[in-house]
Amino acid sequence: MNMVDIILKKREGEKLSPQEIQHFINGYTKGDIPDYQASALLMAIYFQGMDKEETYQLTKAMKESGDVVDLSAISGIKVDKHSTGGVGDKTTLVVGPLAAACGVPVAKMSGRGLGFTGGTVDKMESIPGFRTTLEEEEFMELVNRVGLSVIGQTAHIAPADKKLYALRDVTATVDNLSLITASIMSKKLASGSDAIVLDVKCGNGAFMENLEEAVELAKGMVDIGNADGKKTIAVITDMNQPLGHAVGNSNEVIEAIETLKGKGPVDITQLALTLSGIMIYAGGHAETMEEGMEKAKEALHSGRALEKLASFIEGQGGDPAVVEDYSLFPQPTTYQKVLAQESGYVTEIQARSIGLASQHSGAGREKKEDPIDLSAGIILRKKVGDVVAKGDVLAEVSGRDSLKVRLAAEEAAKAFTIGPAAPELGPIIIRIID
Amino acid sequence: MNMVDIILKKREGEKLSPQEIQHFINGYTKGDIPDYQASALLMAIYFQGMDKEETYQLTKAMKESGDVVDLSAISGIKVDKHSTGGVGDKTTLVVGPLAAACGVPVAKMSGRGLGFTGGTVDKMESIPGFRTTLEEEEFMELVNRVGLSVIGQTAHIAPADKKLYALRDVTATVDNLSLITASIMSKKLASGSDAIVLDVKCGNGAFMENLEEAVELAKGMVDIGNADGKKTIAVITDMNQPLGHAVGNSNEVIEAIETLKGKGPVDITQLALTLSGIMIYAGGHAETMEEGMEKAKEALHSGRALEKLASFIEGQGGDPAVVEDYSLFPQPTTYQKVLAQESGYVTEIQARSIGLASQHSGAGREKKEDPIDLSAGIILRKKVGDVVAKGDVLAEVSGRDSLKVRLAAEEAAKAFTIGPAAPELGPIIIRIID
Repeated sequence: MNMVDIILKKREGEKLSPQEIQHFINGYTKGDIPDYQASALLMAIYFQGMDKEETYQLTKAMKESGDVVDLSAISGIKVDKHSTGGVGDKTTLVVGPLAAACGVPVAKMSGRGLGFTGGTVDKMESIPGFRTTLEEEEFMELVNRVGLSVIGQTAHIAPADKKLYALRDVTATVDNLSLITASIMSKKLASGSDAIVLDVKCGNGAFMENLEEAVELAKGMVDIGNADGKKTIAVITDMNQPLGHAVGNSNEVIEAIETLKGKGPVDITQLALTLSGIMIYAGGHAETMEEGMEKAKEALHSGRALEKLASFIEGQGGDPAVVEDYSLFPQPTTYQKVLAQESGYVTEIQARSIGLASQHSGAGREKKEDPIDLSAGIILRKKVGDVVAKGDVLAEVSGRDSLKVRLAAEEAAKAFTIGPAAPELGPIIIRIID
Repeated sequence: MNMVDIILKKREGEKLSPQEIQHFINGYTKGDIPDYQASALLMAIYFQGMDKEETYQLTKAMKESGDVVDLSAISGIKVDKHSTGGVGDKTTLVVGPLAAACGVPVAKMSGRGLGFTGGTVDKMESIPGFRTTLEEEEFMELVNRVGLSVIGQTAHIAPADKKLYALRDVTATVDNLSLITASIMSKKLASGSDAIVLDVKCGNGAFMENLEEAVELAKGMVDIGNADGKKTIAVITDMNQPLGHAVGNSNEVIEAIETLKGKGPVDITQLALTLSGIMIYAGGHAETMEEGMEKAKEALHSGRALEKLASFIEGQGGDPAVVEDYSLFPQPTTYQKVLAQESGYVTEIQARSIGLASQHSGAGREKKEDPIDLSAGIILRKKVGDVVAKGDVLAEVSGRDSLKVRLAAEEAAKAFTIGPAAPELGPIIIRIID
């Protein structure tokens, strides 16, 4: 098999065979196929697309490019949750304890933040003592004992995706449904869970800006998960403004804790209950999704999910006292308020701009190697639909570098639009696809 | 300027600015822009195309990526000739002496053969003593004195094209009109002549298999040459079978000499008279193309062009006695006949297959560094339209490696199709575009 012929075939709009797709992925992972041929093929795929079968084969080849985790030492139906990425998305830290509290074993691998999106691993590291790297045995033991463990994704999971993603990023070949699907699902299928719940974000702060594309992506991923023998359900959720009020690391963990105390923002609470309800259903602990959601609600209100969070933190070496004492988190030393320049309704908060502002305050990184300021970030005091008077605080930016915080506040200010009329507000849960 | 944005812009079908095209070409030539971004852009160009203006800017940037030859030390209107490449194309060796004999200074740079096509530089090197590398002064002096010099193209001419061509070859991005146009014209415009005559091959042995595409390519190149201030005329010529009878190196030079003696095949003779006639016209030595062709005919029949060839050979250090004594050329030691398996008419001779067979006999190279056998090649004894009886010799393959020659003969045999009815024969000159 010859890579030029494979590129040519796709360029001409023909369907690639499973063998050709494997040849590409294996050769590229090993370094036998150079970046310049891979990027030419990616661009040809961008224009000519891949059908369901090709996308599945691509996902499978990428999954098999590295380790496939064996979670059989954990009893029960393991359920994974994945978000396509948004701003202020601390959902894992709420959903994990809710599902675990209802008997679902959650053995999850998460990523770090890059660019305008945060990552669960960074967020968890703002908890003093918390370890995001565990030995395999420790990881499994924790899930068996507590019901929940979240660690950083190892380089051995879908290395083809790691390499391809970096290439797509610099060759303008990111936004293709088949490539996005294969990227997400190869990692999920390699991570060893028995069922997968996908949170597909839709809106101006997400990859998928329109509903049609989000639905297509969700359907494609659900098909592939099920084809691989894993029960897969997707939820399309709104990402037209940041989720909740907190964006950053320690401040997002605090908001997650508040949510588990029943005092969280409505959008996160509703999203977390829906996702964990579906996980409970997928894990066989409820007959219907609705029953799953009821169970999740009970775990929230009874405080059992909060207890689960504390046990999980303790299990990974963190100080569980943070659940009650937020002063144990890294503290910012400098603050900057963002004030409303006029009176009216908040009609828009550009999620991506808030994500970038948070990154620039110190909470995120541009390059993988960059250090981050765990205390930094943004608290939104107003959300879309809120009434504001000129001079009201729209948001507060904090961190440890006063210049960064000041510049981030200027950036955050531009993310807000204030208008004379109340905007229409859509639901946080847009559609469930199973 | 950011290369990802440039790729994205072209991917979305937008027009690139001259600055963006220059940024790409300069950065790629210097090595600041990596192959993988260049190949992604090339594939995006393949799908979205480039308009006239973009193609001109691309050509210009590629031309300016290296040296632009100054031929002002040569008096008169210098006229260049370029062929898009075919099999058995020894035209330069006939056309150069014809044009020079009629007063046109020809200061030409040529390439080596690669794959199924031969190169004038290799062919000339089969003449004992012939030097294809001359100092600039020597080159100009020879053109001033004899009227003709042909040397190998230096690496300093359009280095961007050299690098891009190698990349296109391995990323399935060769066959795009804008990229082909820029590749050819950047070199021609950098080579310093005042006028350019293009021989655009059309048929199964050429890049352009159909007439429509050949016309489009020719028009594009003519436009760009004229836009750059060089009188440019294109001739679309047939390449549905090899040109003439000889394919290889020394045997093609011998056929070129025979043609200048008035004993050459009809197709080459007609093609050479047409091209040199147009060069004579473009060089200001005839009022019309027809008058130029008449002058070329006179130079052929009077023997003046043959004398010019001898002076040219001598001027570049070669032995001019080869013109009369073909035994001075490298001689093959092994021969293999290709016999007709049935009686009928030759209805087709696949030019590309004959080119490959010649390459495999030893006359060509797969990689740039491969050595070649100057004595090797193929003589076609029958051409399309000829009547053959079973057992007739269709072709003779010769060289110095009996295994290679035998395998090449098997390959050459497959290039012939014999049928019961006489095929329709098209003209060698299909169209002139000025």
